[in-house]
Amino acid sequence: MAKDKKQKIRRPRAETPKGFRDYFGQDVVERNEMLAKIAEIYSLYGFDPLESSAVETVEALGKFLPDVDRPNEGVFAWQEDDKDWLALRYDLTAPLARVYAQHRNDLPTPYRRYAMGPVWRNEKPGPGRFRQFYQCDADTVGTASVAADAEICMMLADALEKVGIKRGDYVIRVSSRKLLEGLLNGLNESELDPRPISAPQREVVFRSVDKLDKIGIEGVRDLLGQGRLDASGDYTTGADLSAWQSDCVISLLNHTKTVSDLIKHILEARDRGEQLDEDYIQKLAETQSFIKGDPLLDNPVANQMRMNQLHVAGLKALARIAPDMEQGIAELEQIADICAAQGYGPDRIVIDPSVVRGLGYYTGPVFEAELTFEILDEKGRKRQFGSVAGGGRYDDLVKRFTGQEVPATGVSIGVDRLLAALHAKGRIGSAASGPVVVTVMDRDRMADYQKMVAELRTAGIRAEVYLGNPKNFGNQLKYADKRQSPVAVIEGTSEKEAGVVQIKDLAHGARLAADMTTNEEWKSQPAQMEIKRADLVAEVQKMIARAASES
Amino acid sequence: MAKDKKQKIRRPRAETPKGFRDYFGQDVVERNEMLAKIAEIYSLYGFDPLESSAVETVEALGKFLPDVDRPNEGVFAWQEDDKDWLALRYDLTAPLARVYAQHRNDLPTPYRRYAMGPVWRNEKPGPGRFRQFYQCDADTVGTASVAADAEICMMLADALEKVGIKRGDYVIRVSSRKLLEGLLNGLNESELDPRPISAPQREVVFRSVDKLDKIGIEGVRDLLGQGRLDASGDYTTGADLSAWQSDCVISLLNHTKTVSDLIKHILEARDRGEQLDEDYIQKLAETQSFIKGDPLLDNPVANQMRMNQLHVAGLKALARIAPDMEQGIAELEQIADICAAQGYGPDRIVIDPSVVRGLGYYTGPVFEAELTFEILDEKGRKRQFGSVAGGGRYDDLVKRFTGQEVPATGVSIGVDRLLAALHAKGRIGSAASGPVVVTVMDRDRMADYQKMVAELRTAGIRAEVYLGNPKNFGNQLKYADKRQSPVAVIEGTSEKEAGVVQIKDLAHGARLAADMTTNEEWKSQPAQMEIKRADLVAEVQKMIARAASES
Repeated sequence: MAKDKKQKIRRPRAETPKGFRDYFGQDVVERNEMLAKIAEIYSLYGFDPLESSAVETVEALGKFLPDVDRPNEGVFAWQEDDKDWLALRYDLTAPLARVYAQHRNDLPTPYRRYAMGPVWRNEKPGPGRFRQFYQCDADTVGTASVAADAEICMMLADALEKVGIKRGDYVIRVSSRKLLEGLLNGLNESELDPRPISAPQREVVFRSVDKLDKIGIEGVRDLLGQGRLDASGDYTTGADLSAWQSDCVISLLNHTKTVSDLIKHILEARDRGEQLDEDYIQKLAETQSFIKGDPLLDNPVANQMRMNQLHVAGLKALARIAPDMEQGIAELEQIADICAAQGYGPDRIVIDPSVVRGLGYYTGPVFEAELTFEILDEKGRKRQFGSVAGGGRYDDLVKRFTGQEVPATGVSIGVDRLLAALHAKGRIGSAASGPVVVTVMDRDRMADYQKMVAELRTAGIRAEVYLGNPKNFGNQLKYADKRQSPVAVIEGTSEKEAGVVQIKDLAHGARLAADMTTNEEWKSQPAQMEIKRADLVAEVQKMIARAASES
Repeated sequence: MAKDKKQKIRRPRAETPKGFRDYFGQDVVERNEMLAKIAEIYSLYGFDPLESSAVETVEALGKFLPDVDRPNEGVFAWQEDDKDWLALRYDLTAPLARVYAQHRNDLPTPYRRYAMGPVWRNEKPGPGRFRQFYQCDADTVGTASVAADAEICMMLADALEKVGIKRGDYVIRVSSRKLLEGLLNGLNESELDPRPISAPQREVVFRSVDKLDKIGIEGVRDLLGQGRLDASGDYTTGADLSAWQSDCVISLLNHTKTVSDLIKHILEARDRGEQLDEDYIQKLAETQSFIKGDPLLDNPVANQMRMNQLHVAGLKALARIAPDMEQGIAELEQIADICAAQGYGPDRIVIDPSVVRGLGYYTGPVFEAELTFEILDEKGRKRQFGSVAGGGRYDDLVKRFTGQEVPATGVSIGVDRLLAALHAKGRIGSAASGPVVVTVMDRDRMADYQKMVAELRTAGIRAEVYLGNPKNFGNQLKYADKRQSPVAVIEGTSEKEAGVVQIKDLAHGARLAADMTTNEEWKSQPAQMEIKRADLVAEVQKMIARAASES
């Protein structure tokens, strides 16, 4: 019967589903340590932990992922027997809105919370691109004050420094959705170009600008116009803006490069006899001379300060044709002022209008933390490490549930990317401390060996008895090596009779013991000593301390 | 446009899906602290962390949940576009088998790993019964030695004591699948009753015995026979064993009650003229007299020791009719001996043949940690707290993938139940320490207030500025109260000019400030003092220390 059953079973493949992965040993420890440091900062700022359910109803999650063409696109979803559609959360923000709406009568207002955990995206997996990944978020729900946005930015800076990113190696770029929104309002049926900009065109503009990091400014320009053919041969239809409208959008992203184009357009318009505000042209000219002015200074803080001024000057220039931008600009100036007053100058938190963020729910300020040091990519080319965290204000997300205005803002740290950055900078990844391995020379005396590990553990030392087949002694040492054990302990019959044990310093004499299969060979090695059985704990402690001081 | 859009949107319900829940603030902190303590013990024993993917292919997970009638029963599963069926893991053991099979060439053997995280079961939710819950597992893969099983049991005892369960408040009950397997082999077409026991009957027997805690010994007896009608009116068909076969199974679960029944049956068989081993009858009689012997002693360790002896004696008696039980009995005796040699006597780790465990993959020793103190249930009745952890040996789980024998054993702690137990015993759940709240008297001076919180945080004190609408001062104090703030800080214009601040001891004078809406009223309260602005950090530290010493 048992045999029949066996024949029927086809062996399952021992594989994670595509795009999923496992994390082993030190990777788990390092992540937990990093998350604990971030949690410490979040907690210091008064944020409380929240762990919401990993599963939500599809309707509660809403559709805010960048790619929204197909139903449930981007999420893992399934239907409960003819009832609700459920899905795995794709971020920690949409669930927070649900939690706040559900529990708002019991929660303080403002509600500051942090959350850490996996999220799932049903996307095409690729190298380094997984469908389950960790996020680590902090959000403040229930206040419209830009002081909350500024606090998030400062806290993010503290968190990055706490985990080991040095000042100067990161910058938090701040912008506002209201800039591009306001600019598009101004460009819609404007004095200089009467063409309207439709709602679908706006959406394409936002999606295009968010791709700046990936496709560069010329790629964005193509997408703002007719469209773009990418390297793989896929064609993406553009927003169909006019050249003038595109230039204005591009100037938001890159003042240094495009304010002069903008001025050229305006001057051409004037040459065609259109009536223009001379004061405005004057302002643009000033901006241009400011850009072309002093070469960048050696002092990075001064340079960043100058970039901040430049961005604000550029934005104010643009606001002359798009007055709706003004609120966004004022909020950004307030955020920069609050941060600067706390000592978080533009060397750390800087205004940068090119930040848009892909998610559809942002309504005001948006932030992105970028690591500015260079690493080698998979092809050996130098490139900036790039973004490790992002967020912004999303004032309408809770309203979806309650109908009432509940302003909110927050940030999400990409945990795996930040860990990769710390590895790249050598801030984590030092040798793991494996357990002391007590070898088994005489399998009838397991109780003796287990007494040893119990003593070691009582002293706080990781320790284990070898539980594999003890026949081949070399295998026991290979095992200890694989475990990165600092010390192996050995007690054969003769040692037992003499009241001694051998301890071997594996961290010190680290090398494979592959060829040694007998106790005798093993004893001839240098980094080994005979000690009294009674001194086991003290001597092992000494050996570990010596290894640690040498490494 | 915006308006049209709004009208189309139906408001989503702000609810978790049925059977799911959120964890807030202190609940998250307490769980993380408990898990960190358990991880510390697991690590001391040489176990390494592993975090496997939450999503697995359905084929990799296999079907080992107790209820296996419908496809994908018990799991949340969905199909990838015409490809694999994926599912959320229902435990941490099945994924470990997949991980080990996939990475076996890179992992040490034996591989000791621990894992902590949520698992999901698509079951009918009920009070206190959720469809997402935490598990915390430790397993050793790649050794058949019962020393590994014993180690798991001792480590479990250490972990329970580490988190705050006192010795005497728990017992780890150990049995073996080989007992019931062996017994059923012996009862199949036996000398005393020639009726065969089919494979489907065996499965019903295992399922029935596993329900002992819920339905009691008489409920199990019904299920071993024709079947059982439960309180809700549902009828469950039984295993259709004969009365004699049922009695033997029952005697495995409860020697004290049923060894005498067993003897009666044997004597009746002899009276019918069947030939029986007189030596066997003698052994049973001795067991019976042992059971009926001395009243239970006052010394609980001695009592447990006696129960251990009793169980072993009872088992050995049964093994006379079912010799296949012998290996299981020998292994249990070895486990008990190893544990006892390390000082883990039967007051902590005890043989108890009634443990079966519901999951289908166990093949040898099985364990269950039970808390022995009483709590009041939801209806106010006293009952034993019950099981908080369970596990066992599952030698065939990796073989499903590789075809090669890979013995393994492990344990899973029910995190939420253990937390509930610690709450019930008052071992956790002391007052949470909320942040110091710096109130806003003058909204133009946010920078001043933010400087204060920055100073407090630098000194390691949780602190935040009130970011809600500052107009109603009473609301600020109500907020501080809701946050369980130890101290509120206040600096109005006059304080600012005088270089002082007011600090209010909220932990000390704890009560709602609902009726106070002005600074003047507030100042008249007792637990408040005026200090120099420069002394803010030192004075707040003193106030928090005082509150802590008083509580």
